[in-house]
Amino acid sequence: MSDIRAKKPSDSEVVMTELAIPNDSNILGNVLGGRVMHWMDLSAAMAAHKHCNSICVTASIEGMSFYHPIKVGQLALLRARVVYTGRTSLITKVIIHSEDMDTGEKLLTTEAYMTFVCLDKNGKPRKIPSLILETDQEKAEYAHAEEIRRRKQEIRKQEK
Amino acid sequence: MSDIRAKKPSDSEVVMTELAIPNDSNILGNVLGGRVMHWMDLSAAMAAHKHCNSICVTASIEGMSFYHPIKVGQLALLRARVVYTGRTSLITKVIIHSEDMDTGEKLLTTEAYMTFVCLDKNGKPRKIPSLILETDQEKAEYAHAEEIRRRKQEIRKQEK
Amino acid sequence: MSDIRAKKPSDSEVVMTELAIPNDSNILGNVLGGRVMHWMDLSAAMAAHKHCNSICVTASIEGMSFYHPIKVGQLALLRARVVYTGRTSLITKVIIHSEDMDTGEKLLTTEAYMTFVCLDKNGKPRKIPSLILETDQEKAEYAHAEEIRRRKQEIRKQEK
Amino acid sequence: MSDIRAKKPSDSEVVMTELAIPNDSNILGNVLGGRVMHWMDLSAAMAAHKHCNSICVTASIEGMSFYHPIKVGQLALLRARVVYTGRTSLITKVIIHSEDMDTGEKLLTTEAYMTFVCLDKNGKPRKIPSLILETDQEKAEYAHAEEIRRRKQEIRKQEK
Amino acid sequence: MSDIRAKKPSDSEVVMTELAIPNDSNILGNVLGGRVMHWMDLSAAMAAHKHCNSICVTASIEGMSFYHPIKVGQLALLRARVVYTGRTSLITKVIIHSEDMDTGEKLLTTEAYMTFVCLDKNGKPRKIPSLILETDQEKAEYAHAEEIRRRKQEIRKQEK
Amino acid sequence: MSDIRAKKPSDSEVVMTELAIPNDSNILGNVLGGRVMHWMDLSAAMAAHKHCNSICVTASIEGMSFYHPIKVGQLALLRARVVYTGRTSLITKVIIHSEDMDTGEKLLTTEAYMTFVCLDKNGKPRKIPSLILETDQEKAEYAHAEEIRRRKQEIRKQEK
Repeated sequence: MSDIRAKKPSDSEVVMTELAIPNDSNILGNVLGGRVMHWMDLSAAMAAHKHCNSICVTASIEGMSFYHPIKVGQLALLRARVVYTGRTSLITKVIIHSEDMDTGEKLLTTEAYMTFVCLDKNGKPRKIPSLILETDQEKAEYAHAEEIRRRKQEIRKQEK
Repeated sequence: MSDIRAKKPSDSEVVMTELAIPNDSNILGNVLGGRVMHWMDLSAAMAAHKHCNSICVTASIEGMSFYHPIKVGQLALLRARVVYTGRTSLITKVIIHSEDMDTGEKLLTTEAYMTFVCLDKNGKPRKIPSLILETDQEKAEYAHAEEIRRRKQEIRKQEK
Repeated sequence: MSDIRAKKPSDSEVVMTELAIPNDSNILGNVLGGRVMHWMDLSAAMAAHKHCNSICVTASIEGMSFYHPIKVGQLALLRARVVYTGRTSLITKVIIHSEDMDTGEKLLTTEAYMTFVCLDKNGKPRKIPSLILETDQEKAEYAHAEEIRRRKQEIRKQEK
Repeated sequence: MSDIRAKKPSDSEVVMTELAIPNDSNILGNVLGGRVMHWMDLSAAMAAHKHCNSICVTASIEGMSFYHPIKVGQLALLRARVVYTGRTSLITKVIIHSEDMDTGEKLLTTEAYMTFVCLDKNGKPRKIPSLILETDQEKAEYAHAEEIRRRKQEIRKQEK
Repeated sequence: MSDIRAKKPSDSEVVMTELAIPNDSNILGNVLGGRVMHWMDLSAAMAAHKHCNSICVTASIEGMSFYHPIKVGQLALLRARVVYTGRTSLITKVIIHSEDMDTGEKLLTTEAYMTFVCLDKNGKPRKIPSLILETDQEKAEYAHAEEIRRRKQEIRKQEK
Repeated sequence: MSDIRAKKPSDSEVVMTELAIPNDSNILGNVLGGRVMHWMDLSAAMAAHKHCNSICVTASIEGMSFYHPIKVGQLALLRARVVYTGRTSLITKVIIHSEDMDTGEKLLTTEAYMTFVCLDKNGKPRKIPSLILETDQEKAEYAHAEEIRRRKQEIRKQEK
């Protein structure tokens, strides 16, 4: 049975540009990890909200990697989209590129998979529209998110 | 004589997404004008910097119009690009659409033409790469910016 | 027929002093244009509110000029007042002087005419108390605001 | 021997207007004490800096009283000036009135005497220009500040 | 008659750690007095709330002393607790130590006694649980707070 | 060979108390995930810095779980400490309890293991003091962090 509300990953895409300012940086002139996480969570929560047309709250982060620092004065280009959907939770992928406005150079700096739960107006979990996968990249990201989820459930089982 | 650094308007384009939060709003639940101006100036300054590969400072605003309020909880989608270049100053056009994440509805809320001056590391005005106009829209925006500039110079002449 | 709620420009005057801090500045040590606009909008909105005894929202900016930068460590002295009133909209003039606390030197840095619409509790436009003009400066500022308004309406007509 | 740099209390006066926003308030809709202190310290430090033409740092607060709350949506009108000078320290008086923009009603809400130490560029205490007292109010405030200082020194003596 | 809600000073203790960042500092690299006051008020208000299980608002500061600056990059370790209780008002003591994370060195930088009034949901003063004093330090701090209160009432009497 | 700079987990412990304010919350009155991450990163970075006596930067997050929301008006009690050390990277554990000041009730809301890299003044990775494990809990947290690390390296291997 088809889900008439089903959407493509590109339908939920959110693009954010942030300017790295001294107030967000450490003494080496790099943006603080906590500020980067704040941006990622914001863009991912907006992508999740757009997919569900309802508020979504952060449930967990399984793998957020910082490859390169973002330097003060550079742009942080964020791109977030829903890549996996479960019944009432979904996984977003967020990537950040830094851009040097003097040279135009861009660099992949940060990547994360973040899980959100979709809620209705009363704060109760709500069924999520399914995802229409078209491109190979979309299918690969779906598989990767599914694997992340499987591993997480395995760890939780071991902890009990 | 051609300018080898010449760029297209799309080369300088900056896309920003902001979530309207209560702290930025008045008692009617609308984002404050000053917050909107802050966002516009930021996106326009980044577009100007990308075009010039050098810092640019706000010189004047000739026409910023608020058509509709942006409501708390909505997204503000900003799009800024350089539309006109003079010798050491340029004009950017910034537009904002609001997006309701529950319904997906978008609305043009704000539009502005802002003039920036390009500076070198010592704060002295610096020559600006010229603009390559291709589409009809780019030519129309150039003409509109040029007209805004002409009127402004006329007003200044009368004031003296 | 006289408007018993009519007020003088000085009745709406708002005086603000802001200290320019590094967080609000670019790499040249100058306060960002967007921060200055935020201050101007805030002081103008408060002046408009005091004149109308009701909330006012930003409608447009017709001419905001940045003559000199405000440097980090200096004071920004803002002065806003209502200079022109229409039926449900009004125009405020805001000027900023920088003050160097080490030398006491003051400089006119920024000037703007900003239009606001007065709203009632339900967000509907509301009639504005008229303005009592006494001094020559008040009459000159009224005429200047009226001229700005006339030009703006002319541009809008051409755009259609 | 006269101090050629001597100044009047009015020379150091700083006037600030702040709009009370929800982010600064508690669940009763009153501005938080800490936000009010922040404003008072800022205006007093600027008044001290203007009197000394050099940076001044907060040394102590002897008596800050909150008579009435400032409500969200009201204006806070701050007025700070130097009222007493010692060799390298001085006392500022800061008062705040709230202003209701809907009714125009004003109320004295907060009052404080704050001591600052004047420093040179190397952070060493620096001699302070003396104060020229003219009005009866200026003389009364000077006497009050002197009495506050005397009591404070007495308490410190007892603590040893 | 015993107060069944009576609490020990340690029951209300609040421990806060703040990192001193450039945005909160003056040109000497010291945290601004107003920022320190904001932190102190916040920790003291939380201690008061925990003691009363109800909201508390700042009433006055009688003695806040800044012994040493907190430098950018250092930690500010705040410790606040209720040390004296009256019928509807109480006194908190707040102390701050700076900690240098490179050397581990700690220093007492700031100390204050702050008075709060406990309010019920309607903003009316509310009876405060009494304080169980056990250690010698707790008794000494109670006596000191009582003396501060006595002196303040004396000053107020003279002012009338 | 013993590491004379070796430290216990308790030596690096950082305790933070944050008050959840409306500005940090979503429409359900829960603190935003991004704000919580910001707090966690800050406390973890300070714990890492205290352990190494040198600046540490966020490298990755392997497992951050949100069990319960933190509600506006509640306290967030953070506790961060170093639980595992490698050659130039270390793992911190951060936990957050919410505390309701009206009832005194506490609840475990969030938990995370975060990896940091220790840097010298030039931004180069620097050797980290080893960890002295004493209690059973410390040994269990070390083993858990080691397991997290092993899994992460396995995933990275598969991705290549």
